[in-house]
Amino acid sequence: MKHTLIGLALSVLPALAQAPQAQPAPPPPVISPEVHPDSTVTFRFRAPNAKDVLLAREGAQRAPMQRDEQGVWTITTAPLEPDLYGYSFIADGVALIDPSNHVMKPNLLGTTSMVHVPGPSSLPWEISNVPHGAIHRHFYKSDVVGDYRDYYVYTPAAYDPAAKKIYPVLYLLHGFSDDARGWTAVGRAHVILDNLIAQGKAKPMLIVMPLGYGAPEIVTRGGTGLRDPNLRTRNYDRFRDALLTEVIPQVEKTYRVAKDRNSRAIAGLSMGGAESLYVGLNALDHFAWVGAFSAGGASEDYNATFPSLDAKTNGQLHLLWIACGTEDRLIEPNRKFRAWLASKDIRHVDIETPGAHTWMVWRRNLAAFAPLLFQVKGT
Amino acid sequence: MKHTLIGLALSVLPALAQAPQAQPAPPPPVISPEVHPDSTVTFRFRAPNAKDVLLAREGAQRAPMQRDEQGVWTITTAPLEPDLYGYSFIADGVALIDPSNHVMKPNLLGTTSMVHVPGPSSLPWEISNVPHGAIHRHFYKSDVVGDYRDYYVYTPAAYDPAAKKIYPVLYLLHGFSDDARGWTAVGRAHVILDNLIAQGKAKPMLIVMPLGYGAPEIVTRGGTGLRDPNLRTRNYDRFRDALLTEVIPQVEKTYRVAKDRNSRAIAGLSMGGAESLYVGLNALDHFAWVGAFSAGGASEDYNATFPSLDAKTNGQLHLLWIACGTEDRLIEPNRKFRAWLASKDIRHVDIETPGAHTWMVWRRNLAAFAPLLFQVKGT
Repeated sequence: MKHTLIGLALSVLPALAQAPQAQPAPPPPVISPEVHPDSTVTFRFRAPNAKDVLLAREGAQRAPMQRDEQGVWTITTAPLEPDLYGYSFIADGVALIDPSNHVMKPNLLGTTSMVHVPGPSSLPWEISNVPHGAIHRHFYKSDVVGDYRDYYVYTPAAYDPAAKKIYPVLYLLHGFSDDARGWTAVGRAHVILDNLIAQGKAKPMLIVMPLGYGAPEIVTRGGTGLRDPNLRTRNYDRFRDALLTEVIPQVEKTYRVAKDRNSRAIAGLSMGGAESLYVGLNALDHFAWVGAFSAGGASEDYNATFPSLDAKTNGQLHLLWIACGTEDRLIEPNRKFRAWLASKDIRHVDIETPGAHTWMVWRRNLAAFAPLLFQVKGT
Repeated sequence: MKHTLIGLALSVLPALAQAPQAQPAPPPPVISPEVHPDSTVTFRFRAPNAKDVLLAREGAQRAPMQRDEQGVWTITTAPLEPDLYGYSFIADGVALIDPSNHVMKPNLLGTTSMVHVPGPSSLPWEISNVPHGAIHRHFYKSDVVGDYRDYYVYTPAAYDPAAKKIYPVLYLLHGFSDDARGWTAVGRAHVILDNLIAQGKAKPMLIVMPLGYGAPEIVTRGGTGLRDPNLRTRNYDRFRDALLTEVIPQVEKTYRVAKDRNSRAIAGLSMGGAESLYVGLNALDHFAWVGAFSAGGASEDYNATFPSLDAKTNGQLHLLWIACGTEDRLIEPNRKFRAWLASKDIRHVDIETPGAHTWMVWRRNLAAFAPLLFQVKGT
């Protein structure tokens, strides 16, 4: 742009900040988070009159921050393993988003901030200079649920709607209090698949990420919704119906995808893991690949929940992959479920990893699970 | 799901909340924002030790909130016009996101919360039961800028990549401190176009929303970046080059779109308005339709900035649409620019509306501008 642009720009550019007029000067901004070369991270938060500020970081115990004379609270962590971490500041008991950081970990019951501690490009969630797929957001009015909702679709880099090639599909479900954005905005599913596909480790596939609530009031009512058994039942059943009768038909009409059970997988985390087991194992006509990451919310009366599941289904079920972190409170229910599967001679893969009920576990789960999918003849 | 699921669910569902373990009980949640039937809105924020909390609402003066004995600060507004409003709480001088509200107004220099005051379905940004288009997010490595970036594409409901029909394209630019999400996450461009197209008021078109920075450090350096004239120049010129040599070719390769100047429009808000004028009016071989909403950051030396623009270009320029709110500090520069256009006999449309430098103005701008596009023979 010509140098002559500069004169006016100096006078009007401050007006571009979309701020109301005539405010007192705000206090100087703080830098937060600051990721240091040794992978320690400094968090800073200005709260001059707070009495107590803690850092709540995903997967870690809360840690007190220290106040300086300007009213800025600070903490520097030990070196962190390269990853993405959700965090918030607990100021006098209230969880707050870091106002200096625009990177969010969206969540319907408690959005937090997120910090990226970068690592080598060999980590599956690090963005690499490989061909990138795209993320598509679709909207529709659900007759099953009665609301206006969305779902996201990842298409791999080579996907071409004008070409003849068709792709298998992984239906990937978020957890309680997340929404359909979770697996991309936090889970980086698109980055993970871009990398695995470019390395030849995973088959090119689509990933469909629907909204995982059949009864959205289970979230909007907060904790009380979870304690209503009728609401929970309706949540699972209507989710199943919306997936099978609305989302899958729309996807299979819109995209160039294979429409047979060998070409459909279903997996999810936490509540989405329970949904994957409940929906997938009761619809083997639809799915031949099932995964559950830190699943929770399924009954221990497995005979009643999965009435038609027995050793005869081994021929249909190409993969049943059950993963949980050993520090997750859900590890025992997962072990019980795997013991029941073993008692019935139902073939499955047991995965126990380090970690708690966190996205650090689930990104690694996806990176380990996706390469196993669709690796049979004819899919 | 079978009733037998309930037993375990009661015990494990609290573990689904992805919270660290063994924390003290948090204080009871507050409800915020609460939109009342008369369109007043109550905002609440727990900050027991803050000395001063203000509500900063988009387009309004800051207003003090009142503390109750539990440490919850509250304010109820006068009835608000149905719209979407960004807001934050200014606690002892620090702008904070409402921790009770998951709806965000993303911004690289200051994400705020957002509240929807619903209105009649005749408002263009209200979601209606009409056919819905989709939003596609693409990623690429920019050789012009040297970073990894994204752009968003809206396709109308009838768009079919397998059909022969081709569509015109509006390139729609965000403002300073926003990013490529702005026009959908805040501007609801997809909802506005869904409605206008369903009503027959706008031609079916694609909207491409690129990242508007040619030099992203202009934002990451905060206010200091704006004061560096070389950086500003590089920001505009590299944005132009990324748009013309990277984004447009990728879009025209990926989508079924017309590739002639009569089928391309460019418009934007604030910094994006200045970019639309600078890029569009200097590339009439690419664009025949140009719009600027509350444009800012363009030089007053118009002869130097637009050296080839004169009355002879009236035959090429199907629409030059210049809008600004009368309460916007940028109204005077916009009036000066329109006076220059008039002095050169360059045909254009002058639009002055109520409002300041806010998204309330820009959503209405888009709803008024989009119906004018591509309404000539052969497009």
